[in-house]
This record gives sequence, C-alpha cells and structure tokens, in this order.
Amino acid sequence: MIEYRNLRIALLGAGSVGSQVARLLLEHGDELAARVGAGLELVGVAVRDVDAPRDTSIPRELLTTDAPTLIRSADIVIELMGGIEPAREFILLAINSGADVVTGNKALLATHGPELFDAAEQVGAQLYYEAAAGGAIPIIRPLRDSLAGDRVKRVMGIVNGTTNFILDRMDVEGSTFDDALATATALGYAEADPTADVEGYDAAQKAAILASLAFHTAVPVEAVHREGMTTVTASQVESAEKAGYVVKLLAICERLVDPETGVEGVVARVHPALISRRHPLAAVHDAKNAVFVQAEAAGDLMFYGAGAGGLETASAVLGDLVSAARRHVAGGPGVGESTHANLPVLGIGSVTTRYQLTLIVTDKPGVLAQIASLFSEHGVSVEAVQQTVASADPARPADEPLTATLVIVTHEASEAALSATVAAVSADDSVVRIESVLRVEGDTP
Amino acid sequence: MIEYRNLRIALLGAGSVGSQVARLLLEHGDELAARVGAGLELVGVAVRDVDAPRDTSIPRELLTTDAPTLIRSADIVIELMGGIEPAREFILLAINSGADVVTGNKALLATHGPELFDAAEQVGAQLYYEAAAGGAIPIIRPLRDSLAGDRVKRVMGIVNGTTNFILDRMDVEGSTFDDALATATALGYAEADPTADVEGYDAAQKAAILASLAFHTAVPVEAVHREGMTTVTASQVESAEKAGYVVKLLAICERLVDPETGVEGVVARVHPALISRRHPLAAVHDAKNAVFVQAEAAGDLMFYGAGAGGLETASAVLGDLVSAARRHVAGGPGVGESTHANLPVLGIGSVTTRYQLTLIVTDKPGVLAQIASLFSEHGVSVEAVQQTVASADPARPADEPLTATLVIVTHEASEAALSATVAAVSADDSVVRIESVLRVEGDTP
Repeated sequence: MIEYRNLRIALLGAGSVGSQVARLLLEHGDELAARVGAGLELVGVAVRDVDAPRDTSIPRELLTTDAPTLIRSADIVIELMGGIEPAREFILLAINSGADVVTGNKALLATHGPELFDAAEQVGAQLYYEAAAGGAIPIIRPLRDSLAGDRVKRVMGIVNGTTNFILDRMDVEGSTFDDALATATALGYAEADPTADVEGYDAAQKAAILASLAFHTAVPVEAVHREGMTTVTASQVESAEKAGYVVKLLAICERLVDPETGVEGVVARVHPALISRRHPLAAVHDAKNAVFVQAEAAGDLMFYGAGAGGLETASAVLGDLVSAARRHVAGGPGVGESTHANLPVLGIGSVTTRYQLTLIVTDKPGVLAQIASLFSEHGVSVEAVQQTVASADPARPADEPLTATLVIVTHEASEAALSATVAAVSADDSVVRIESVLRVEGDTP
Repeated sequence: MIEYRNLRIALLGAGSVGSQVARLLLEHGDELAARVGAGLELVGVAVRDVDAPRDTSIPRELLTTDAPTLIRSADIVIELMGGIEPAREFILLAINSGADVVTGNKALLATHGPELFDAAEQVGAQLYYEAAAGGAIPIIRPLRDSLAGDRVKRVMGIVNGTTNFILDRMDVEGSTFDDALATATALGYAEADPTADVEGYDAAQKAAILASLAFHTAVPVEAVHREGMTTVTASQVESAEKAGYVVKLLAICERLVDPETGVEGVVARVHPALISRRHPLAAVHDAKNAVFVQAEAAGDLMFYGAGAGGLETASAVLGDLVSAARRHVAGGPGVGESTHANLPVLGIGSVTTRYQLTLIVTDKPGVLAQIASLFSEHGVSVEAVQQTVASADPARPADEPLTATLVIVTHEASEAALSATVAAVSADDSVVRIESVLRVEGDTP
C-alpha cells in the first residue's frame, strides 16, 4: 500500500451537486489518490443547518456550520453553495488563506468574476470553474488550454437544459410552450419558478463566462443582450420545421467589427433563433447541452453532454479538484483568467445576422412586390420568400379580405436596418400583422 | 512593449501540419507570448531536403537538415515528421536533452508509446499529443484532465475522416463504396493508396491511444481488433436506413467484465457498425470526426470537429505548445501517461453487443420459426425480425424457389454465441445465403 501525504479538502454546500461530490470523494478516494499522487481528505462540509434533512451519505461528524474555520484549515476549497453572498466572501477568505478554489457558481462568476480572479492572481491561488458552464461538459478547459494557440471567432451554445427540453418537445411532439413547460416541471427539468431558465437569465450568466474566456476579455452579465423564449409559439416551431429549421435558445458570443464604427469588439447575446436542421446543434435533444465553437485554425468544434444534474456536474467538479490537487503536489501553473485582449464589449446593435419574418398580408396582386421593395429600401436583402394563400373560410365576413402568409428569410442585416424594415412593413396598408420575427443563426439548410 | 524571455522552439517536419504550425507561430507570435508569458522563438525547422519545393512561408534560413543539433538547442521540440524512425530516435534525444515534446505522431504513439512516456517520466520531461487523435478536436486533454475524477466506461469514436466521408456519401446519396471512394480521392479526402484508412489501420492506432488514456492502461495497437469497411455495400447502407440506422466505422474502447472468465479488462476494436439515427454520432457528416464518451458520473459526452487537415491539426499542436510553454515559465505538472489501473487487455471474444443479420431464405411456411429456433438454441435472443418476400421474377427458372429476405436484430450476444449461430444458420437447408452480419452499437432507435 502506497502512503501519500493528504491534501485537506473543504466542501461548502451539500445540495444535489455537493452531496454527490462528497460521496464520490469518500467512495473513490484510493483511485483519486493514485491519479493525483496524494490523498484527498474531505475534512468538512459546511452547511447552513447540520440537522436539516438531507439525502446524503455524508458522515454527520463532517458537517459544520462554521464555514470560516473549515476554510482556513483547507488546502482546497470546493464552493457549491450557489448565490452571491456568502459564497463571494468565503471564496475570498479561501484565496487569502492560501487555498485553491473549485466553484460551480455561475451567478457569482458572471457578476464578480474579475474581483475573484484578481484576488487569486495577487496571492498566486487558483480558481477552477469547469462546472459553472455546461455542467458535465468539458468546455472551460478546452477553451482555455486546447484552443490557447488559436483564435476563437464565435461560440454558439445550447447552455440551458430546461429550455432545450421545452423547445425539443415543441419540435418533436408539436406541444405548446405551456404544455411542454408543464411536462418539464413534472419531470423535474424545470423549477417551480422557471423564470431564470425561460427568460434566459441562466443562459446569460453562462454566456458572460464563455465570452470572457473565449475572447480574453471581461464580459459582465449586464452586457449580455437577453431575450427569453416564452414568446415562442407552436406555429413558429411548426413553420420553422417546414422550412428546414429548428428553434433553439442560443447563447452566442462573437468577436466582430461594428459595421458602423469599425470598432472590433465582443458581443454576447441570448435569444431564441432558427438553425438549420443539418447543423450539429439541431441534433441536441431533450435537456442536453452543447457548445459549438468556431476558431480560426481549428474550424468548427462541438462539445456535447449533460448541462445539469447533481452527479453529472460532480464529474466536472472532481476533474477540477484533481487538477488543483496535482498542482499542489507538483507546483506550477493553474487556471488564470486571461483578459490580455481586453476588447471593447459591444451592444446588440453591432450584430449582423439573418432573419425570418412571418407576415400576414391581404391577398391581392402586387403585395409581394410592394413588401419586397420595403426591404430593399432599407438595405435588407431577401434570400427567400414563401407565400401561402389561406383557404377561404366560409364563415368569413364578406367585408374581410382573403389573407396570405409571407415567410421571408433575409440575408445578413444589421439590427438597425431590420428594425427600420419591420417598422415600415408594419405601417404598410396591405400588412394585416407581423406574426413573428426570428433570427436565423448558423449555415443555410 | 513587454519584454519576455524567449523559449526556443524546434520544429521537425514541414509538411501540411508543420508548415501551418510554423506560419501561425511566426504570424501570431505576440499574441501567443501574451498568453504564455514568454516569447516563443522558432529557432529552426528540420527537413530532409532544404531545397525541396514546399508551399510554405518558412524563412529559408530556419531550414536545416541537422535535426540532432537543432533538437539539442531547444526548450520545446515539435515532432511532425510522422513515421516510426527517425521520429522515435529524435523524440528520445529531445527528452534526454531536457526538452519537452509536442507530437502528432499516432503511429509512433500507438506502437512505442510506453517507451516514450517512460523515458519522459525518468527525466521529468513532458510529452503532449493532442494532435495524435481526433485532429483539431480537444479529446486528449478532456479525457486526461476533465474526466480525471470520473470513471470512463466506453469511448466510441468516428476517428477517420476518409471513411466517414465515404459512408456518409453512401448514406446520403446512395453511392456504392467504389464511387464514394473515387469522390473522396478526387476531393483530396483519400490518399492514392487508401488502405490505411479503409482497412481501419489509422482508426486502430487512434483507438490504442484513446483506450490507453481513458482506462489508465497500456493498450498496444496490436491488441486492437480491426475490421475494415471495404465490404460495406450500398444495399447494407440502404437497408440500415430503412431500419432507422446508419453505418459508421467506429473505434470502440470499453471497460468490461469477460462473461466467461469474470476477468475485468479493456477491449479496443475498430469495425463498421450500425448506430441509431437518433444517436449523436449519426449526425457526424462528411469528413468530420467525433468521439462519444460514456462516463460513470458525467454520463454521455461528445466531442466533435475536424479530424484532419493541416491548419485544423495545427490548432491542436499550438494548444499543446502553449501548455508546454506555460509549464516552462511557471514549472509544475505536465501531461504524464498514467497506467496506474493497468487492466488486462482482453480480446474481441469478451465483447457482447447486438447484431443485425440479413438472410436470404427460401420462401416457404415455417422458415422463420426454424431460423428463430436456431438462434434460441445458441443462446442468442432475437429483438426484431423483418421479412420481405421477393416479388416473383418472370424470368426466374421454374426450378428456382421464391426467396424472402429476413433482417434479424438480436439482443446483446457474445461473439462466440453469434459465430455459432451464424454457422448453424448457414448450414440450414432453407438458407440460400447470409447477406450480411453487422454489429449494432449504441441505443435502440
């Protein structure tokens, strides 16, 4: 039997991820020790209430409510409490006590990342956060290390499992948003209050983390343009399918040059979008996550897996723990948050993309030509138009005109040009209403 | 302007990957220096013939035929010559001269990996090889670091772009193998002699590398069971499509318990197989590669991207170079090839999997029952049968019986049980011939 020196591990939080991390640490201790070259001793688990009922195999004597004392005794602190405070305070305490930190706290990193990374850099401590974006999917390490010699152009991710589950049900089964949400709630994929997921707040936090890392630039969550997906309708999903697309809630981070000002910068945005059914992201079903990365040299890459789940996310936490522990044994460089590029963070107005507009128009000769001229007047070029004439409803009042549906897909256009076009179209007499406006991302089907 | 100390980089080989590595190093030097915290100075490029015509921007004064002198002067040596010798000799020289090594040489690693890793370990040097499997796809680092706290159960990869291109054309366009190969050759996806690709030798080398890493066990390429894909026919691909499958050449590495002996070990194998069209690997088109990983805690993960190409593979080499350089600047642990698990390497006979058999039988009552009983006699359980009766050919000789096609998918069975079943079926009077036997991998569609 090999004797190792032990590293002292403190765990903050014993929720769904924390209790799995504790279990795996206790059960697989010998195997992890062989991989690290040192024992990993779980010296304590800080919780709010030692007596709270919990479904966990953590021995009661490891539980404590005195997080600061536990933190000061540890070589490596794993923070899985979530929320901003006291997580922020505890991580700073750990760093200043000489410990390295592993965290899965996306809300904290998306709002206070630079403060924490600066604090770590000042004392030479390391902050690992693979579990903060993409759950079990290794995405932080590939972006940071594997692509370190490349230049990332765009990151396009399905980073929220709840909303992907809902949109996948709507696509595969033709469900409405409400029915799909109810199923997600019943199956435990959605929380009682699903706001953070369906309004895109969770995805926006992950977008801030991914954009910061991919572009070596601090991107705060407030700078992420965010639109939720509660407005996506069954008919939008159905007509997308007919046109060869699928609707996904995407987190998109890209490096681009603002077409107006010529300034190069970074834009991060979260919104529902159409992507081609042949795009690798279209094959991401159920509550799975995937991050599609486009780099100058590497070309297109995709990282796919479980974006949430206690056991799955615990795998990412343990991977970070092993990295941190190996560094303790052998010394050397850790993660580090590089912001050497320090590009300006631009607004959604700098983005050019393609759009799909669905218009209900009166069915009379010349309408298509009239609408098309409105697009060209505003500098928006049309890629494809599909016109469907509604079958006459016998019950329709005699004075109500027959209508047609126009589905128009544009070439790349700026937000400003598109907005001006939408305003002009909506003011046109022959347009009954604008049914939907959706961005189209990725390649043409 | 920040002043860095320079690290001396030697490049061996100036082929399609090497010339791109040299170009990116020379063009992006400042950006890489900022990421590393040290300059990366390309001090020389060893080639066989300085005057050979090459399409590269490498300054002539960097070229040399004296590899040993160049190697002895370097902090980091990048080996992109390919082949066994003198690549092996040069890597050992680099290690023993105190340099770290980055290589993309899959043939060398699959045959002499343990020797090279041992040599590196003895002097504390590091060997990086992200480019050796999966081209641009970050797969080595995720397996080694991100999943270091998890247990890998199975790795299932499309790791050869040429054969995936051929099978994708056969699937999407209904091409024959020969036509698809001709297209692949014309487009530069296949070499003049495609043997290494279509017979699975290239995939077997990558399987050996992935299996060694995933299971912390030395798996030599000779232990990889290998079947090529030249025998896959257009009709197999078509009938797979009808049944909801697609044919892919898979490299499968798994940890399993031999059902006969109870011995736990590792099996690596390369062969054509059916997978469900809903499986993420089914969406890997053209010459793309992907590696699907199943881990105990993380669940299902997939890594997708370009498996070859000079520029794409150069991205992986540069990522390794930045890691090696950071270690030079800050010290600390590098790659390391862990074989602490040291599991026995088992043969293909230990594998149980599902099978699809296509049989041509005489069309008479009772044939299906007779065939089914042969399966059950040999302990092979049938999951599904589809019977198609051939329409009578008017030109058919009167003495030739009408035939039917039976497509049988089994539940999991051992190779031995399946072989015995095939022998019994082929000896049966009512069986005209066995059209095909293919393994079925992944989930049921």
